[in-house]
Amino acid sequence: MQPIKWEEGRLLLIDQTRLPHQEDWLSCTSYREVAEAIKTMQVRGAPAIGIAAAFGLVLGAQEYAHLQAQDFQQKLQEIAAELAATRPTAVNLFWALEKMAQVVDELAGQNPSLIVRELERAAGQMLAEDLAINKQIGNYGQELFPSPARVLTHCNAGALATAGYGTALGVIRAAHAAGKVQQVYASETRPLLQGARLTAWELHREGIPVTLITDNMAGYLLQQKMVDLVIVGADRIAQNGDVANKIGTYSLAVLAHANSIPFYVAAPISTFDFNISTGREIPIEERDPREVTCLMGQSIAPEGVAVFNPAFDITPAQYITAIITEAGILRPPYGEGIAALRSEKRS
Amino acid sequence: MQPIKWEEGRLLLIDQTRLPHQEDWLSCTSYREVAEAIKTMQVRGAPAIGIAAAFGLVLGAQEYAHLQAQDFQQKLQEIAAELAATRPTAVNLFWALEKMAQVVDELAGQNPSLIVRELERAAGQMLAEDLAINKQIGNYGQELFPSPARVLTHCNAGALATAGYGTALGVIRAAHAAGKVQQVYASETRPLLQGARLTAWELHREGIPVTLITDNMAGYLLQQKMVDLVIVGADRIAQNGDVANKIGTYSLAVLAHANSIPFYVAAPISTFDFNISTGREIPIEERDPREVTCLMGQSIAPEGVAVFNPAFDITPAQYITAIITEAGILRPPYGEGIAALRSEKRS
Repeated sequence: MQPIKWEEGRLLLIDQTRLPHQEDWLSCTSYREVAEAIKTMQVRGAPAIGIAAAFGLVLGAQEYAHLQAQDFQQKLQEIAAELAATRPTAVNLFWALEKMAQVVDELAGQNPSLIVRELERAAGQMLAEDLAINKQIGNYGQELFPSPARVLTHCNAGALATAGYGTALGVIRAAHAAGKVQQVYASETRPLLQGARLTAWELHREGIPVTLITDNMAGYLLQQKMVDLVIVGADRIAQNGDVANKIGTYSLAVLAHANSIPFYVAAPISTFDFNISTGREIPIEERDPREVTCLMGQSIAPEGVAVFNPAFDITPAQYITAIITEAGILRPPYGEGIAALRSEKRS
Repeated sequence: MQPIKWEEGRLLLIDQTRLPHQEDWLSCTSYREVAEAIKTMQVRGAPAIGIAAAFGLVLGAQEYAHLQAQDFQQKLQEIAAELAATRPTAVNLFWALEKMAQVVDELAGQNPSLIVRELERAAGQMLAEDLAINKQIGNYGQELFPSPARVLTHCNAGALATAGYGTALGVIRAAHAAGKVQQVYASETRPLLQGARLTAWELHREGIPVTLITDNMAGYLLQQKMVDLVIVGADRIAQNGDVANKIGTYSLAVLAHANSIPFYVAAPISTFDFNISTGREIPIEERDPREVTCLMGQSIAPEGVAVFNPAFDITPAQYITAIITEAGILRPPYGEGIAALRSEKRS
């Protein structure tokens, strides 16, 4: 399952708002279409939106390759800013655009068509590397699984959230390949139901045993010891190990802790924000109230009722048993291990 | 808002599966219709299903009043058993049928038409008393609210769950009347959305400020100290103060505890089960998987995916700050206070 493809100068994205009932592919030929796809969550998942934005910049560069070198670079900055403004919480988006900006900076003053080629190469490399990184995360992470393992996951940190394979679901895939997975419980993840629509779909079609629950049932499963571990992805990780992830993650971490069940986070190094010290500095996106009041186009609440719709929450590091990265497994206290990743990233 | 009415020998129930968009009333003329309405949750809420079952027995008694005294009593026992089998967790159902059985026992051998009359009188009294009890719970409970209070509630423990006024929402109504309520957050309560469809509807139409959230957002609100207290109803309370209530209640209690926010339960004495010592003895109803996979008749999950759908959970007494009853407010440890209620109930 590879949800992002670059073919003949177009970005192909599986439309995640239509799954599981329809497998529609979007064909983006302009950066504007990519920005819109990120905003509307047709492509979602921290690593996936980073890669999509990188290709968005390639499309923008193609469009303006006729400009003079200086105007071209100015235009690229504007396009990058527009792509960066699509969603505020996941840091991979900014990380990916930063990587692309470095390519442009290194070729400053060169012929735009050369820069376009190099941007295309860089985005392609990001796509390929993300897949390799996920597999490495899977290798490390599956070692943490008992056998047999009953696993709870939230939202979708799967192939669909990445270039393929997934972070949290990548670990589950690796553990399944190692014969360790007895049962995966997927919490449906209101309001947009990424657990029900995407995680259940990904696992079910691969024959990995998956059982769907509503979000408010997770505590009961943990209390009843029906789950051996919880594993989720991340949208941004602070220097102290605080994790921003899909709304509801914090609750699962507290409930796992109260029931002495390990709580793992799986994320690539691109998800770490080395510029902030704690999760309090991470902006939390609030989305359209209609995501809560309308389901499949139908109203489920009284007309005119007020809604609060934060899309993410912050899980304090104290509730996280380990963070699984492509460079290995971090254990608390996280400060030192995360600082070491920073050096690794720079090298 | 009075969701249960007895008029001219028929039981009128507002159909809670059609709210908030349609205010349909069911007219039940047989105990079978009442049993079906309880099973399908057209009437729901622990006190409400107790009262509905009591009137169900009245309808059964009317239907078989032509039988000989002995056959009549035998038939009433069968009908009571059928009504009792509709739902397993809320104890008010069994309590109400037990009260009705006492009426029958006291009149053993009397003319069936006399028994019908007395059953009708007893059910009517139960309806009237429930309303008075809720108002008393409201009076006691609102004293616990700070001013201004920001309140989180789950599911619907409102007028719709009772003869009117409500338990948890009764306390909120009383606190609102006292000018204390700044904001009520209603968690939508998947799978059947009693929070979104019923609680938001009840409060919104009365002008009590209500904001809807999905269940997985509650932890974030508690962490961010956007809530001063949590208050919920109950379906059954054990001798030690363990509480069975709508799935998700346990999670809210743990999350409130982790954030030092008081967690209150409001329930009439009829919700206490004096025959069990802890919550472990309370049966947890599992309902149809389609409640999770279908919403408003539309599928939201991949075809054929497994589902786990427990309708209730158990909140251990240790997480409960106080239990509000019509006899006053109980504080931990609950054993003694609950034992005292038992004596009160018998007197």
